[in-house]
Amino acid sequence: MNLHGSSFIGDRLAPGAGEAFHAVNPQNNTQLPPAFHTATAEEIDRAMKLADEAFMTYRQMSGERRAVFLERIADEIMAMGDTLIARAKAETGLPEGRLTGERGRTINQLKMFAQIAREGSWVDARIDTALPDRQPVGKPDLRRMLVPMGVVIVFGASNFPFAYSVAGGDTASALATGNTVVVKAHERHPGTSEMVAAAILKAAVACQMPPGVFSMVHGNGPPTGLALVRHPLASAVGFTGSRTAGRALFDAAAARAEPIPVFAEMSSLNPIFILPGAMRENGVAIAAGLRDSVTLGAGQFCTKPGLVFGLDGASFDTFKETIVPLLESVAPTTMLHTGIRDAYGRGLSRVSRIAGVHSLAQSSKSADPGQTQGEPVLVCAGAADFQRYPELATEVFGPFSLLIAAKTIAELEDIARGLEGQLTATVHGTEGDLRGAAALIGILERKAGRLIINGFPTGVEVCPSMTHGGPYPATTDSRFTSVGTAAYLRFVRPVSFQNFPAALLPDALKNENPLGLAREVDGKTTREQLI
Amino acid sequence: MNLHGSSFIGDRLAPGAGEAFHAVNPQNNTQLPPAFHTATAEEIDRAMKLADEAFMTYRQMSGERRAVFLERIADEIMAMGDTLIARAKAETGLPEGRLTGERGRTINQLKMFAQIAREGSWVDARIDTALPDRQPVGKPDLRRMLVPMGVVIVFGASNFPFAYSVAGGDTASALATGNTVVVKAHERHPGTSEMVAAAILKAAVACQMPPGVFSMVHGNGPPTGLALVRHPLASAVGFTGSRTAGRALFDAAAARAEPIPVFAEMSSLNPIFILPGAMRENGVAIAAGLRDSVTLGAGQFCTKPGLVFGLDGASFDTFKETIVPLLESVAPTTMLHTGIRDAYGRGLSRVSRIAGVHSLAQSSKSADPGQTQGEPVLVCAGAADFQRYPELATEVFGPFSLLIAAKTIAELEDIARGLEGQLTATVHGTEGDLRGAAALIGILERKAGRLIINGFPTGVEVCPSMTHGGPYPATTDSRFTSVGTAAYLRFVRPVSFQNFPAALLPDALKNENPLGLAREVDGKTTREQLI
Repeated sequence: MNLHGSSFIGDRLAPGAGEAFHAVNPQNNTQLPPAFHTATAEEIDRAMKLADEAFMTYRQMSGERRAVFLERIADEIMAMGDTLIARAKAETGLPEGRLTGERGRTINQLKMFAQIAREGSWVDARIDTALPDRQPVGKPDLRRMLVPMGVVIVFGASNFPFAYSVAGGDTASALATGNTVVVKAHERHPGTSEMVAAAILKAAVACQMPPGVFSMVHGNGPPTGLALVRHPLASAVGFTGSRTAGRALFDAAAARAEPIPVFAEMSSLNPIFILPGAMRENGVAIAAGLRDSVTLGAGQFCTKPGLVFGLDGASFDTFKETIVPLLESVAPTTMLHTGIRDAYGRGLSRVSRIAGVHSLAQSSKSADPGQTQGEPVLVCAGAADFQRYPELATEVFGPFSLLIAAKTIAELEDIARGLEGQLTATVHGTEGDLRGAAALIGILERKAGRLIINGFPTGVEVCPSMTHGGPYPATTDSRFTSVGTAAYLRFVRPVSFQNFPAALLPDALKNENPLGLAREVDGKTTREQLI
Repeated sequence: MNLHGSSFIGDRLAPGAGEAFHAVNPQNNTQLPPAFHTATAEEIDRAMKLADEAFMTYRQMSGERRAVFLERIADEIMAMGDTLIARAKAETGLPEGRLTGERGRTINQLKMFAQIAREGSWVDARIDTALPDRQPVGKPDLRRMLVPMGVVIVFGASNFPFAYSVAGGDTASALATGNTVVVKAHERHPGTSEMVAAAILKAAVACQMPPGVFSMVHGNGPPTGLALVRHPLASAVGFTGSRTAGRALFDAAAARAEPIPVFAEMSSLNPIFILPGAMRENGVAIAAGLRDSVTLGAGQFCTKPGLVFGLDGASFDTFKETIVPLLESVAPTTMLHTGIRDAYGRGLSRVSRIAGVHSLAQSSKSADPGQTQGEPVLVCAGAADFQRYPELATEVFGPFSLLIAAKTIAELEDIARGLEGQLTATVHGTEGDLRGAAALIGILERKAGRLIINGFPTGVEVCPSMTHGGPYPATTDSRFTSVGTAAYLRFVRPVSFQNFPAALLPDALKNENPLGLAREVDGKTTREQLI
């Protein structure tokens, strides 16, 4: 595969400017060719203008055409075969099996949103027929549907080079609903990004999409992303990454003359509460599950459990004894890049310096800096110290977790009340435990987008019932999800059509219901036509 | 009616502090008793804490209980009878008929949201059943529903003392979905606010609601509202008012450590485009309709048409000639308060000073400052001047409109492209006109939340198909509406429940479907139970 290192403005290449940057193979810390260059301000402006022009055409296209486009993207990605996996592996250090699986998820997401576009009822069509004779004033014919917002800015995430990157869930949900997309490629996997973008653009040409329906710009550092978010033609933003970066984008969007919505998925501790019965009866199994969930993919998941709560006592002591050898047996693995590995190292030092924090377990094998490895680590502390030091409640991204021993269930509830927003919260309990856990679960419902009983938060199912979101700082807007079918709601808005003649109505709102949608007609849901 | 002038913290009175402020009768510029005092920081904090505590109980209550509460509020408001109308008339100068109608709308809104709470399907329940044997990993049982966000801050609007104020659509939609509410009373109708708040609290006591489910604080000036929006326990904000005030609240919410969503409905010109055939054939009727829409309620509607576009020529000249006497015959009427009347006066001077703006018509009767009257005014200008002076595209709140003559349809389209976001946009056209209007309508769809053909934007129907919203500065978030059934979406968020035992699932997500909701089960919408 010959990579060119340029940004794509529609189907044209844009060479960029500035100092060259390269991807680095974290497995051996060697630079990978080719050189990439940050897109210029003029190139970014061109990409945005082209995306805005393309929107005027693309938003009018049928759901069927958008569906075929998304499916073609999936085909073009698969057609690159192992070449794509090899590049992604070189750029991220993620194992082949994980990458193949993630590519599969990405393909499924594209196909799922293709199906949503094709079926069409996502527009949530509503029709209220006229009552011209109503007193004191007649009621007009009023119809409403969801429409795309415009140009959506998508940021590739480093920890999901496929599923949350160039052709990931943000792009798929935005394109399915008629938005055009400008991606900011993640600077740590620019080659993977180029390959996937090329696949999208090949599909765009094959499907006769307007140039600009998709563009992708490179940038090494925050200015590129900020320029996109501040561009007057941007309509909405999807981001997955660090709290600092997400907040910077949110602040930039809020400070615009015309603010635009930013959905940034940022930071989560994914607390797990192990209730006394479960600790006593299922401690061994929970320890094994926790070890797996904390160390899976070098702990580089936004749903990695970073906080584990139990009640002080013999069962918790046994649990800790159980998990020590389990954790020690996990070898350090390569992290995504030195930036993440170094931040992980800083996070570990920060936490371990806090009074009351004790080391519990770490991998019996030392991390090899030459392979950008991160060492699995568990530490523990008491609830009083956790309450005293807010730094203990900030995310350490990597294979790390903090075990906290509380004195009473009431103390656990109190801690739960003080937590920031989370993507997930988990409770382990026996039937008996759970009978008394309603208060705790009620507190956690206010804190998290997904609640789990007797499971682990890693593993995010892509389906209608998934909420991958949560109160700040898990995300910047708890009303939305970035995973699952509802993800498109971030990028659509309602428009009402009052007193429209049939010929001017969008197909979704015509009496004949030519698209066969499920619609709310005078308060009743139906797929029938209006007579 | 004896008014006390205090804020309500739950069912307790809070006397406030600081200089007294009074309502003023705009019909004669006399102060109305009693004195009101701005709530103290401590009182605001107490209201917020009580609201947050109440939320833990209220959010768990059944839809039926919430419905009964909302219906009881409606009854208590009606039970005040003419006393309430009289006070509202004294504080706002709005005529009795209008106030009676608006009260009716408010009652209907409360009952509509009661019905939504009772029926319950608003939670958008989704169930994806487990596939434990799926390869490579099993699929967990995952269920999802919408839940209330917490404490919603509602700002009363001066131009709708009932329907967008203390017990208006924001409060009704927030309470229906399980949020608790703290209202910032509008300082221009504090007595009306007190009376409606008392009705809500009487209903709360009768329905055994937790104290704090509703509070209302008084404040004269921005600090009270800002303190509410900045309070750590606030979850979301609903506001209708000026662009300056709305933006200040939005900025304050975005600058919080934990940003919260603000839906501020602020500013709209509601442009009307009269196409040549319609101008020629229906000019007389359109002129009469326009006159009515511009001057209705002294032009104090957010949907008042403030911009009217036509093509230069004989028909437009005739149209202008037609509308002059129609407008002259409309007598000046009392505006809501001197603040709005003075801002109207400033707006008129600002516009009339701009080169190229010509006076077209004004009421033949002069406005009486002693009655806080605003004079109906029409001015006109050419399209080139409109493009040159952006001040011409800022809202003048009151019975004013600006008629713009363009040379060509292309110029109209160009102007439409340059408009800021709007609540509404209207096109008048004959069948022939409309055949060629797809491009214009396509442009307007990106600019407005509601498009109208051959009608007028004033008159906002409360129903499922209504979108009262639009791109900035019409609102701060075009993805939502503040009128109609969908208004509650501003104040709810999804939560997923993974692997929950039946006993811990909310009723909405139980297999038996005890609430009889419409739910999406494994991708199919059904009211059946799961077997």
